[in-house]
Amino acid sequence: MTEHISEAVIRRLPGYYRHLRELEDQGIKQVSSHELGERMHQTPSLIRQDINSFGGFGRQGYGYDVSELKTCIGSILNLQQPHRMIIIGAGSIGSAVAKYQSFIREGFQTLAMFDINPEKTGTLFDEIPILSIDDLELFLQLHPVDIAVLALPGSEAQMMLERLIASGVQAIWNFAPVDLVYDEQAISVVNVHLSDSLQVLSYKMAHREDVIPSSEDQANGKPENRG
Amino acid sequence: MTEHISEAVIRRLPGYYRHLRELEDQGIKQVSSHELGERMHQTPSLIRQDINSFGGFGRQGYGYDVSELKTCIGSILNLQQPHRMIIIGAGSIGSAVAKYQSFIREGFQTLAMFDINPEKTGTLFDEIPILSIDDLELFLQLHPVDIAVLALPGSEAQMMLERLIASGVQAIWNFAPVDLVYDEQAISVVNVHLSDSLQVLSYKMAHREDVIPSSEDQANGKPENRG
Repeated sequence: MTEHISEAVIRRLPGYYRHLRELEDQGIKQVSSHELGERMHQTPSLIRQDINSFGGFGRQGYGYDVSELKTCIGSILNLQQPHRMIIIGAGSIGSAVAKYQSFIREGFQTLAMFDINPEKTGTLFDEIPILSIDDLELFLQLHPVDIAVLALPGSEAQMMLERLIASGVQAIWNFAPVDLVYDEQAISVVNVHLSDSLQVLSYKMAHREDVIPSSEDQANGKPENRG
Repeated sequence: MTEHISEAVIRRLPGYYRHLRELEDQGIKQVSSHELGERMHQTPSLIRQDINSFGGFGRQGYGYDVSELKTCIGSILNLQQPHRMIIIGAGSIGSAVAKYQSFIREGFQTLAMFDINPEKTGTLFDEIPILSIDDLELFLQLHPVDIAVLALPGSEAQMMLERLIASGVQAIWNFAPVDLVYDEQAISVVNVHLSDSLQVLSYKMAHREDVIPSSEDQANGKPENRG
């Protein structure tokens, strides 16, 4: 069912999920591609194309059933079951991730944080134990997790990735400012490169009049419109 | 020069910049599209296409001059001059942004943080003053800034955006988990939706065999390869 969903569509799925949850919370049962597009700053045709690409639940003239579409997207995003995480690095980024409340609501549970600093290890942060990085492999044997958050210096990220793969971790959420080298069949990686994001903002600020709205979406739309 | 750079290319520019800086630090003068592609997990043809799209500095058979290309991309990203920022919200996300060292190296300077909590206001965090949100407009009159970081609850983000636009802020780096409504001519916005990023990781973990490498890039490449 979910084969051949493009990266660009995958990146938009959480936005769909968020807006559909808000609509559901407001008691709204049906939504048109036009309304979803307005909420998401996208064209109705892109919305229809995205939703068609993973199955197509719309009925011409009636729009989409909010709950049905939300359940479908939640299932594609693998949100129907809880995920267990650990955080490598109890510095400011690791602590911010540990405290981020909306993850918890969505079923992402942090079991432990790991650090090298003996002043931090052995303590609790927001009820989450901070353990020594030396105990990582033993902990993962006893408490397998899906996801490891890398919130440590870039110079240590690659070596840590290899330890985590060897311990059976399935996915890495990488905040270290490096591009990791890995086999995409062995592990899934999503980067949050904060500096990159801030530089994109710097670009947009300087070239506000040049930015083409939705140019990425054009690339997924009609090729004849390009160039 | 920089007209019509697509969103997908803009998102890759900071990665080019980071790799070119590393090459420059290693004393490397020339780099081929093949070598850059290997470092960035992209095809050489995409690399050439990206770089062509903002001017084209390659010489067939010789590759790119590392310093020249880095300077060019730095200039497109508007990094040649320092940027002044404020952070709205001195909670865990705001504090993590304030402490993030690599921003400072790249010329992004945090002048102040703002909060509503009287136990925080009037103190220093890592030498950055935490001021009352009531003093925001006065502060911005005396110390104009380019960028405001929104690290506050989603329910307060839209109202704060409007206060910041009225005070002449040019760009918003939004960590609040909401989609802001704004006029793209009036202000530039880049979102860091952490929950969305984590959900994309959840998707990739569940569908590892389905993920098409570089599918976004195909969308920017040859339209005849699609569908």
